[in-house]
Amino acid sequence: MGKKIGRSTVKFGSPVCISNAASIVGPKEGEGPLSEYFDKILGDELVGQGSWEQAESKIVNDTVNLLLQKSGLSTKDIDYVFAGDLLNQTAGSTFGFRGIDINYFGIYGACSSFGEGLGLGAMVIDGGFANRVIVSASSHFGSAEKQFRLPMEAGSQRPPTSSWTVTGDGCALLDKGGHGPFITSVTTGRIIDMGIKDQNNMGAAMAPAASDTIYTHLKDLGVTADYYDLIITGDLGYIGIELLIKLLGEKGIGINKKISDCGIKIFDRDKQDTHNGGSGCACSAVTFSGYLFELLKGKSLNKILLVPTGALLSPTSVLQNETIPSIAHAVAIENL
Amino acid sequence: MGKKIGRSTVKFGSPVCISNAASIVGPKEGEGPLSEYFDKILGDELVGQGSWEQAESKIVNDTVNLLLQKSGLSTKDIDYVFAGDLLNQTAGSTFGFRGIDINYFGIYGACSSFGEGLGLGAMVIDGGFANRVIVSASSHFGSAEKQFRLPMEAGSQRPPTSSWTVTGDGCALLDKGGHGPFITSVTTGRIIDMGIKDQNNMGAAMAPAASDTIYTHLKDLGVTADYYDLIITGDLGYIGIELLIKLLGEKGIGINKKISDCGIKIFDRDKQDTHNGGSGCACSAVTFSGYLFELLKGKSLNKILLVPTGALLSPTSVLQNETIPSIAHAVAIENL
Repeated sequence: MGKKIGRSTVKFGSPVCISNAASIVGPKEGEGPLSEYFDKILGDELVGQGSWEQAESKIVNDTVNLLLQKSGLSTKDIDYVFAGDLLNQTAGSTFGFRGIDINYFGIYGACSSFGEGLGLGAMVIDGGFANRVIVSASSHFGSAEKQFRLPMEAGSQRPPTSSWTVTGDGCALLDKGGHGPFITSVTTGRIIDMGIKDQNNMGAAMAPAASDTIYTHLKDLGVTADYYDLIITGDLGYIGIELLIKLLGEKGIGINKKISDCGIKIFDRDKQDTHNGGSGCACSAVTFSGYLFELLKGKSLNKILLVPTGALLSPTSVLQNETIPSIAHAVAIENL
Repeated sequence: MGKKIGRSTVKFGSPVCISNAASIVGPKEGEGPLSEYFDKILGDELVGQGSWEQAESKIVNDTVNLLLQKSGLSTKDIDYVFAGDLLNQTAGSTFGFRGIDINYFGIYGACSSFGEGLGLGAMVIDGGFANRVIVSASSHFGSAEKQFRLPMEAGSQRPPTSSWTVTGDGCALLDKGGHGPFITSVTTGRIIDMGIKDQNNMGAAMAPAASDTIYTHLKDLGVTADYYDLIITGDLGYIGIELLIKLLGEKGIGINKKISDCGIKIFDRDKQDTHNGGSGCACSAVTFSGYLFELLKGKSLNKILLVPTGALLSPTSVLQNETIPSIAHAVAIENL
């Protein structure tokens, strides 16, 4: 049985296997550097639906069914799902799972949701309450722009600090048994707020949360950053990563040789014009479920710390001149 | 260690104690039949804030601090919090917990959130990952009307099937040790959608989900409704409860002598003009944290099944003519 170590970390007694993963992404993500790793690249971001929101739910539904199909499992074989997204009332997930007959836990951690789901899913399995859990996180460029920013039809100019919401869904299958890779520990974040108010600079808003969680993770486990082959945040982008390296450096922790970011990996900086990089719940979810999972399976990576990052703002809080509280969850995934 | 029984139920190895609870409610709730059970009744629904949303976050923050104070604990004594609400991006909770230094899991199950949090919190404790967990669920009449319906200033007439969103926050403290009452089992819901589209009749939308979860709970544990002193749903109201009794009756389960609803308990039908009764995440959270918790502590109730119910719609999904997917989670709470 696992146990809590230090302030915020759970170390699993029996590491929890990630036995499979599935990813579906939009056309732009399919033109990026990780193209070959995704299960399916959509030709059309609307997927035949009448709205961006309905398209996102369709992508969620398709990705879960794809994961079940790839794994040779049916809904009866899955004990629980943890699912989250950015839409109001997490409608991407709730409508995506409508008609899918699995016990359902809705989560909200903005773009940290995939990390929150992996952590809770692993606890539920290691705690003895489940054999198999699915974790899903989705986002959609169209639905996110419409909800958080301006109608796409307005053709507004995007500030250089802004990032590009990833269209897609990433699903991971957690399993009591299996050959790995394994979730060995998770560090749960606190809400951190350094007073940033610019919703077009979420990398800066989230960097302090990522710094706090990575620092706590290393301290709780008594390891250095060198323990990992790769420490990869969710969607800090170029600006956030620079700040993260600085913040951890001030605490005496050098990570610049180990660090990367899913938002940096998923788009080509020179050719794809996404400014600060990719973002959204799907950013870490598809980068993990496509790219990182393959590298771990192929043993070209053996120890990674995945740190999905979330900016906990709402369109209403922005209009009310509020700050952007942020959070990050760290998930250690290793071949054993 | 606990284990999963049947399709959807976890039975705890060491039942998890609910060692304390706190509730703060608005003026209207303070004029209702449960008035004497709440810790604090607000004189002003804005609590000195500039908006309904900021008022809701202030109530969340105050209730958590009140629970810590009543329990003689500080944030350092709490391993995790599970918190949810109805606002877009669960802003009631994320801004409410800003500045509260506890590892944070955001959840979203609409008005079933309190049940989801109690279930996950109990699993995390029984699984060995935590000693103490706080579960918080909030809603606010003003912020809910503004977001889901029409500006209050418009003075729109409310349909007879509509319910009244409870203003308040209910917080429970789950504890590895203690004298009870105890969470002995939880049944996690699936998303159920019978095609109801009327957002002013959420009792009807949610009744099938409550029926499914209660039926599954009794079947998984092999007990009848008679096992409990009280089975109490979250916010089905008068219409939803009638449907629930009918739906379970069709499956051969008689619950009409055992059943009640937090939305029926919290307001006076004749004097308070709330039509179908109370609703919102806070409805089950404050009715439990105030009223039911006291009755369990005083042993006038000894075995209850609390079934918070959630309608997983969003304002956008309603405009897109979507159905209302629903969910319910059942939490068995007993004196042992």
